[in-house]
Order: sequence, then C-alpha cells, then structure tokens
Amino acid sequence: MTRRRIYHLLEQPSRADRLSWFVELALIALIIASVVAVALETVPELFIAWYRQFQTFDLLVTLVFTVEYAARLWVSVEAAPDLPPWEARLRHALTPIALIDLVAILPFYLTLFMPLDFQMLRVLRLLRIYKLTRYSPALSVLVGVIREESATLLAAFSILGILLVFASAGAYLVEHQAQPEAFGSVPAAMWWSLVTLTTVGYGDVTPITPLGRLFGGVVTILGVGMAALPAGIIASGLADHLHRRRDLLREEFRCALEDGHLDLTEGRKIEELRRQLGISRDIAKSVYQEVRRRQSEKLSCRCPECGHEFDAWKPGD
Amino acid sequence: MTRRRIYHLLEQPSRADRLSWFVELALIALIIASVVAVALETVPELFIAWYRQFQTFDLLVTLVFTVEYAARLWVSVEAAPDLPPWEARLRHALTPIALIDLVAILPFYLTLFMPLDFQMLRVLRLLRIYKLTRYSPALSVLVGVIREESATLLAAFSILGILLVFASAGAYLVEHQAQPEAFGSVPAAMWWSLVTLTTVGYGDVTPITPLGRLFGGVVTILGVGMAALPAGIIASGLADHLHRRRDLLREEFRCALEDGHLDLTEGRKIEELRRQLGISRDIAKSVYQEVRRRQSEKLSCRCPECGHEFDAWKPGD
Amino acid sequence: MTRRRIYHLLEQPSRADRLSWFVELALIALIIASVVAVALETVPELFIAWYRQFQTFDLLVTLVFTVEYAARLWVSVEAAPDLPPWEARLRHALTPIALIDLVAILPFYLTLFMPLDFQMLRVLRLLRIYKLTRYSPALSVLVGVIREESATLLAAFSILGILLVFASAGAYLVEHQAQPEAFGSVPAAMWWSLVTLTTVGYGDVTPITPLGRLFGGVVTILGVGMAALPAGIIASGLADHLHRRRDLLREEFRCALEDGHLDLTEGRKIEELRRQLGISRDIAKSVYQEVRRRQSEKLSCRCPECGHEFDAWKPGD
Amino acid sequence: MTRRRIYHLLEQPSRADRLSWFVELALIALIIASVVAVALETVPELFIAWYRQFQTFDLLVTLVFTVEYAARLWVSVEAAPDLPPWEARLRHALTPIALIDLVAILPFYLTLFMPLDFQMLRVLRLLRIYKLTRYSPALSVLVGVIREESATLLAAFSILGILLVFASAGAYLVEHQAQPEAFGSVPAAMWWSLVTLTTVGYGDVTPITPLGRLFGGVVTILGVGMAALPAGIIASGLADHLHRRRDLLREEFRCALEDGHLDLTEGRKIEELRRQLGISRDIAKSVYQEVRRRQSEKLSCRCPECGHEFDAWKPGD
Repeated sequence: MTRRRIYHLLEQPSRADRLSWFVELALIALIIASVVAVALETVPELFIAWYRQFQTFDLLVTLVFTVEYAARLWVSVEAAPDLPPWEARLRHALTPIALIDLVAILPFYLTLFMPLDFQMLRVLRLLRIYKLTRYSPALSVLVGVIREESATLLAAFSILGILLVFASAGAYLVEHQAQPEAFGSVPAAMWWSLVTLTTVGYGDVTPITPLGRLFGGVVTILGVGMAALPAGIIASGLADHLHRRRDLLREEFRCALEDGHLDLTEGRKIEELRRQLGISRDIAKSVYQEVRRRQSEKLSCRCPECGHEFDAWKPGD
Repeated sequence: MTRRRIYHLLEQPSRADRLSWFVELALIALIIASVVAVALETVPELFIAWYRQFQTFDLLVTLVFTVEYAARLWVSVEAAPDLPPWEARLRHALTPIALIDLVAILPFYLTLFMPLDFQMLRVLRLLRIYKLTRYSPALSVLVGVIREESATLLAAFSILGILLVFASAGAYLVEHQAQPEAFGSVPAAMWWSLVTLTTVGYGDVTPITPLGRLFGGVVTILGVGMAALPAGIIASGLADHLHRRRDLLREEFRCALEDGHLDLTEGRKIEELRRQLGISRDIAKSVYQEVRRRQSEKLSCRCPECGHEFDAWKPGD
Repeated sequence: MTRRRIYHLLEQPSRADRLSWFVELALIALIIASVVAVALETVPELFIAWYRQFQTFDLLVTLVFTVEYAARLWVSVEAAPDLPPWEARLRHALTPIALIDLVAILPFYLTLFMPLDFQMLRVLRLLRIYKLTRYSPALSVLVGVIREESATLLAAFSILGILLVFASAGAYLVEHQAQPEAFGSVPAAMWWSLVTLTTVGYGDVTPITPLGRLFGGVVTILGVGMAALPAGIIASGLADHLHRRRDLLREEFRCALEDGHLDLTEGRKIEELRRQLGISRDIAKSVYQEVRRRQSEKLSCRCPECGHEFDAWKPGD
Repeated sequence: MTRRRIYHLLEQPSRADRLSWFVELALIALIIASVVAVALETVPELFIAWYRQFQTFDLLVTLVFTVEYAARLWVSVEAAPDLPPWEARLRHALTPIALIDLVAILPFYLTLFMPLDFQMLRVLRLLRIYKLTRYSPALSVLVGVIREESATLLAAFSILGILLVFASAGAYLVEHQAQPEAFGSVPAAMWWSLVTLTTVGYGDVTPITPLGRLFGGVVTILGVGMAALPAGIIASGLADHLHRRRDLLREEFRCALEDGHLDLTEGRKIEELRRQLGISRDIAKSVYQEVRRRQSEKLSCRCPECGHEFDAWKPGD
C-alpha cells in the first residue's frame, strides 16, 4: 500500500472506495465508543467493577489514534507536493484538526513520563469528541457562519454583558438587605442575573421583596428580547449562506441550459460544483426543474414584435 | 357503493362532496376522542369508576379503525391501476401512513393472541394521535422542511452534543467534590448540562461552589446561543419554502397577465396550481393584485422613445 | 359640535388636530389607569383601605367609556354615508373593536340588573386592556401576520401537541412507579411534559430514575427544536411583510423619479402611500435616497455604444 | 501636541497610528478593570481587606476619565470648524456618548460636595460599562436595528403585556383560593405570569390545582409563541440590514468592473465605502469574487446574434 493510497484512504474518502468508507466509519465508531467509555469510567461503581476492561479499551483506542495521527502526518506530504516533506508535515501538524488529533492521544503519553492529576487527564480524554468535526461538512458550514457573523454575535453578547451588569447592580441594591446570602454582593447577584437573562431560571435564587420582583420582571422582559438573539443571528446567517450556495448552482444550470439542453461536459461540471457546495441531490434536482420550467416559460412569453425574449418584471423580493 | 366511490371518499375528500367531508371530520373526532380516553384511562380513580365504558369505547374505536384500514387497503388499487392488485395493496401497506394506521389497531389484536404487558399496550394506543398527520397539509410541509434542512439541523444538534460533553466534563471536575450525589460522575453531570444548555433549568441540580457557578455561567451563555438554533433553522427554512411557493404562483400570474387580462383557461390553470401549492385564496388574491399593479405601472413607465417597456432597475433584494 | 366633527375627533385623529390628539391620549391614559386600578383592587389590604375611591373611579371610568361607546355608535353613520343609519350603526356595533368596547362597560350594567359573582366581574374588567389595540397600528400588523401564517403556526402547535402526547406517555411509563403522585397518570405526566417542552422548567416535577432522566433528556432536546418555532415563524412573517411594504414604496419612488425629479403631485401620492403602509419617515427617506443613488449610478453605467441604459446583472439575492 | 493631533488620537483612532491604537486599548482595559473593581468592592470580605487599594484605584480611574472627558470636550471644536467653539463644545457635551462619559465621573465629584448614599453611588459607578459602546461598531448597528424595528418590537411587547394581564387575571381566579399567599391578588399573580410567559420558570410559584395547571398549560403554550418574538424580530432586522449593506458594496463593485478591471480610483472609492459600511475585508473579497465570476460568466452567455450581453432570467428570490 503506497503513501498515495493511504492519503486517499484517510483524507479523501468516498463512497465509491469501499475500504476508505469502512475506515471512516470505523474511526467514527471508535471516537464515539471512546467518549462513552470515558464518561462511564467516571461512575465510581462501574470504575471499580470494570477497571481492567476500561484500561485495556483505552490502551487500544490510544494505539489506534496514535497510528492514525502518525499516518496522517506521514501522508500529509501528498497534499502539498511542492513543499519539502518536513515543511508539509509541520504545516499539517499545526492545522486545528491535527492539533485536536494530538490532544486526543497526548494525555496518555503524558502520564507515562510524569506524575499528573489522574482525574483531570481522564476527563481531558473526553475532548476526543472534537475529532468528530472532521467528518461533518454541515458542522464546518455552521462554524463558518459563526465566524462570518462573529462581529454581530459579539455585539449581541456585549448587549447581554451590559444588561448583566445593569441587572446585577439593580438586584444587589433592591434585594441585598432582604437576602444577604444570595444578593450580598454584585458578583453574587450576577448568578441570579445570568440565570434570569438567559431564561434558564433555576429558581435557587429569586427576588422576594415586591420591589425586587418588579425589578426582576423588567430584567426578565429585557432578557427575553436578548437571550435568543445569538441563535437568531446564526439561523439568519445560515439561511443566507444556503441561499447563496443555491444561487451559485442555479446560475450554473441557467448558463448550461441556455442552449436548451444539458450536455455531458456541462452535467459533469455542475455535478462537481454540487458536491463542492455540499448541496443534496434532491435540492439540486428541484433547482434544475425550476430553471427548466422558467426557461420554457420564457419562450412562451417571447415578445411578438421583435422576437426578443421577454423578461417582464421580476418579483422585487 | 363502488370501490371507486369509496376511494374518493377516503383518499380524496373535498368540501364539495358532503359525505367525504363528513367521514373525514368523524374520523378526526374519533382519533381525538380515542386519545383523550386512553389518557384518562390511566388515571386510577377514573379507571376503576368507568372501567366498562372505557373498554366498550376502545372496542368501538378499534372496530372503526380496523374497517377504515381494511377499506383503505382494498381501494388502494384505484391509486395505481397499472399494477396488479396485490402489488398495489402491498405498496400501500408499506407507506408510513398505512403503518401508522396499523399500529393504531395492532395492540388490541395482539392482546387477543398472546399475554402481554397490559399497561404498555394501553399507552401504545396513544400513538393513534399520529393518524392526525394525514389530515394536515401544513404538517407535511413542516416535515418536508425538516427533511430539507436535516443536514443543518444535524449540525446544530452535533454542536449541542459537543457542548454537552464539554459542559458535563467541566461541571464534573469543579463540582463533584462539593456535591457528590448530583455531580458524582460525567453521566450524572450530563443531566445538569442538558437542563441548562436547553434553558429548561429545573433547578433540581445547580452548581453551588463559586468556581462551579462561574463555569455554569459560561455554559449558560453558550447554551443560549445554541438552544434556539434548531427552531431558527426550521423557521428560516419554512419562510424560504413559502417564498418559493409564492414565487411560483406569481410567475404564473405574470405570464397569464402578459396580454392584460386573465382568461378562463388561465384562471383555471392558476387555481389548480394554487391548490396544489396549498396557498390560501387570500394570499393568492394579494399576489394577483401585486402583479396587476406592477403590470399597469410598467405601462405608465414605458420608454417614450421606442415604446419599449421600461423595466428600470429592480431592487437587489 | 357637529356629528362630522366628532367623527373625525374619534375615528380619524391626527397630530394636526390638537383636540383629537388630546382626546386620544386621554382615552389611552384612562384605559391604563383603569386596568391598574382593577388589578390593585384585588389586593385585599388596598381593597379594604380604598374601597370608596376604587368604586368612585370605576363609576367614572364606566361613564366615560359609555359616552365614548354611544358617541362612536352615533357617528358611525359618517363612515358609510350610503347605508341607512340603523344599518351603518349595526355594522359598526358588530365589528370586533366595537364588541371590545361593549365588553369594557357591560360588567357594570349587568351587576345593576342581576346578582352575579362579584369577583368574576371585577376581573372581567381587566379585559378593558384590549381597548388599547385600537391605538397601535403595529399591533394590527402583528395580528395580520399571525392570521397570514396561521396554517404554519397551527402545524407548529400540532407538532408540539404530538410531542406532548408522546412525552407524557413515555414519562408515565418510566416514572409512574418511582413517583406515583407526580407521574401517576398520563394527564398528570402531561404537566411535566408541557413545562419541559416549552423550556419553562419550573422544577416542581422532575424525573428521578436514570431511565426517566434519559427519556427526559431526549424530550428536552426535541422540545428545544420546537418551542421557539412559533416565534420564529411569526418573526419571519413579519420580516417578509415589512419587505413587501418597503418594496411597494420603493416602486412608487422609482416610477416617480423616472424623469429625474419628484414633483408635487408625485410627492403627495407617495406621502399618502407611506402613511397608509405605516412606514416611518426615516425609512421612507432612506428608501428615497437608495432609489436616487441607483438612478444616478445607472446613468453613469449607460452603454457607450447605443446609449441603452445598461442594467448589467442584478444580484441574485 | 496640537489640538488636531489629540482630536485624531481620541476620535479617529486607526491601526496605522500606533499611539491612537494604544490609547484606545488602554481606555478599554481601564473601563473593564474599573467595572470589575466596583463589582468586587461590593463583596464585604474584599471591601474590608482591600479598602485602601479600591479607593486608590477608583481615584486613579476617575482622574483618567476626567482628563479624557475634558480632552474630548476641548478637541470637539475640530469636528465642527464652522461653529463658534462654545457651541461646538455644547453640542458635543449633549451627545449621548458624552453624557455617558459624564455619568462615569460625576458620582465621585458629587460625594465631594454633598453627603449622599454611599452605597448607591458605588453601584452607579458600574454604569461606566456603557462607555464601551463607543468602541463597538457592531453594537451601534444593533442599536440602530432596534431603533428601526422599534414599532414592531413595541407591538411584540404590547402583545406580551396583554397576555400578561390575561394570564394574571385567569391565574388569580383559579388559584387564589388554593394558594392565597402566591396568587392572592392580580399583581401577585403577575409575578407567576411573567416568569411563565418568558419561559424563565423559577418554580418558586406554580399552580397546584388541576384547573390551575390546565390554565397554566394554555398560558405556557401561548407564551412560547411570544417570548422569543422580540429576539426573532431583531435577528430578522439585522439580517436585512446586513444584506442591504452588502448590496451597496456589490453595486459599487459591479459598476467599477463594468469595463473589466478595477482601477486605482475605483479601488480607493470602494475601500472607503467598505470601511464606512463596517463590512469586513473577507466578506468584501467574497463579494468581489462573486461579481467577478458573474461578469465573466455573462460574457460567455452573450447572445450569438447581436452580441447583446444576455442577462437571461434572474432568480426571483
């Protein structure tokens, strides 16, 4: 098995290549199993009863992930054939996804060389779940949208922060005499503010004076206007992103169908674009039909005088 | 009453056909009444007092639903006249909606033939509520949107899952010494994480150490950005879906009004499309008026030189 | 003071007419004061201490609202000059807003003629707050959007209902032995389901068995995807509505600016449309400037060959 | 250092000017440190242990903010060179941002001249956090969107208010006999209504009678449809705002690329617009590439007969 083969196996899996498909699924299953095992290991009864098995499984998992990490490092040269091997590998090693892979195996090796807080390391192994991000294209879209909207999100969180300070200061003033243990200082009151503004509302700390409840009511109403804002911003951004990708595909179809039919070269080019944009076959098909329908309609709406294709008005929205 | 008549009665009810309208309403009423009865049956006092009546009513409901199931199976041949009857019926029997119909009656017949956990079966009958999905076009639109957006929804739930693991691990680390019963293991801490990240916030388990509250605060703020995300994605998808359907209707009106008036054939074609898309008469009317107004405006904005219909610029959004 | 004058005073108030402006503000203040008084009246201590004053104030409020009701009924003839007076008045009396006005005064007169539950009637007077709906154009837009999206909202609530039945049945099955008082029947478990699915999360009833918490977790995650859906649907509908109104105004500006300037007749026509659509002066101004800018840009993008105004491509989104 | 230099330093900081960049960062750090200090000062133990240090730090902060306020007042003349100096300064002093600056230092000076409630003033100093608004362009966008959508937001809050009165009245009627302390009057019941309608759900007050829980359930479902509405409205408004800004930039690129390339004057003009609109370099770049791609595509879709650039249909949405 050559380096090129392993490269395709690990970094460019496709359904057509059975082996790469199997490797990908096996790795995903192992990540999930490993995270579940680490979580269960923290249950004292299970830990005592299955101590050996947990240790063996973790050893196995670490071994597989180490091999995977080494293999990816080795084949990373294929991705950048113009660079000297050491530079290609260093670049790969510094990508976020490779760092996550490293974090997934490092705790084990650290315990070998130095005495460390065992419990902390046990829990650190839960970070292996981040290895899953490699396998979800939609997740990277979501992360991309969050990055795109980061300025707006920051503004939303800033408003939340300002409201938080305002709510804590007010709650401290009106409630700290009635409930010195829960509202005895501004940082203490902040716990109540946070739980209220985010509409979590545990109820472990609530205002009890009439004035406190009035103030709490105002804070709650303001909070309700702000708490769901980040989610709304991300959802809008996602919708916008999806529209833009669909528009790209539609353009491509439109141009290809200009002459009335879709020839093989055009079909392949569009198929490639579809995959690249991560649009499902179903949606691509509906876009195609829409373009098709509009093209044929346009022919029937042709201007009778000069034969100019009549575009009429397009809906403003 | 022929098979064709029953087919139209059951599968293509319309307001024009009084009998089919009545049958549909009666079935909807029976489904709701049956679910209410099953729910009330679980109240011990009511069960003891009205045992007989509950049993009789359930027998009646099962009988009606059995007849309905058999009838739909029998007439399903009409929907696919090209297939041999047995194949048409098998295909019908395997559709999700037919399986739901089967589940609604099966528990009763199972108890006749084998001894089963009575209580479990009682509750299973509540699944009859899913029979309602047949009668709501908007519900199927919603399900369609959820399917279309499934990749994005999965990504949102993945982020929620990753946050959940992160929050549970952190809460376990900082709180398990102060509250060994509530945060004694990662799976135990997961209950708190879930209740917090989704902003439900029961308050049965809350962090009490200062560090725990600080960590809890960070988790809460992150949760607030993620919890409402699925709803936002679905709402955006729905809005997009509705726009696309309205655009289709608008196009149709535009093309039909090209010559200045709507003739009978065009009117019928549009009416058919309107029904197919599930757009209300009110909205269709407002779309029509909008197109009408734009057409007349365009005439008044005609280019004075060559009589070319002046399209000016169209709003970018 | 003629009937026509009173009609304009009550039904078509404008800032230009000082008296109508004052009457409107006074009525709004009286509605709010009345609702506050009714609410405070239910506090036992205040009721005992200020019994007389509350009664006098309520008498006064009822008197004013009765005069207002009678006056609106009297002048309603002006709104429909073609109908015989009794028919115009009957039509007015049957409008929702007139019925609200009636409900605001009826409790008082009912107590005069028949002995009724005093407390119930006291509280019914709180419905006077609905009289405020007359004064908020944005509120009627919101109600309009809710009506437009009613099919989708119904679908969202249906899914919530189906989830509710599913969650209650499951919680009953897994928890009713551990907590017979809280999960002893399906209707009892429904309280927990509702409080959880809507993310309210009081915490008065929570699952305590491991299986119950697992099931509760699944229900919570599903609930989070559904709870904010109605709000998302209404918000999308509102945004769509606002866009459509702004597009109408933009079109008007575009057509009026075709010849390069806005003459007096065009200005008045647009101002009328702006008021009718309830768009603020600020937004109208920004729409105007946008149209203006685009018009001038287009001239500079004129095709150098044939002088045809070059429309280039318009953004797909 | 001239007045003009200080003006640029304080009011027009840019990354290119190292000193202004440093001054801006230092001021932001000081605001945050000051707010943290004030919050910590309210913790009794810390206040006793670090009394001196808190006082010294606050003196320092007040001094810096006073110098900053005076400097901004002094250089404000540069912003309006046509006005007489005193008028330019008065105008500056009355802007919201200058008033916030004043509030940040005023508490200190007030205590010098008159005996005031010490605790109240301590807390008032937390308002210094509002000084941060000056440094976040996204925050001012958010505030702008809230102002633009204020009519719709007011409507959403009005509906919440009407629901609140309705829920309080109903809860009072059905629960005040079972729980006279929590639902003894309409204002008391309002606390429960507010906590429920906003989905906070502390659980300190919950309905316990079956009728109360039924009513509570209805209120909760209605609340869920309303609570997230303000956030949805703001998120929609933000998305719309961002689209409009991006469209402006796109237009500019389109016009500049009409002749096939971007010359220096055009580049500078667009760069200026980009900064003015607060669009990031990344997004500007992607808009540029999109325009570029479309331009080149259009050339390849040129009509073969007359060489007219073929615009085909544009997507309706």
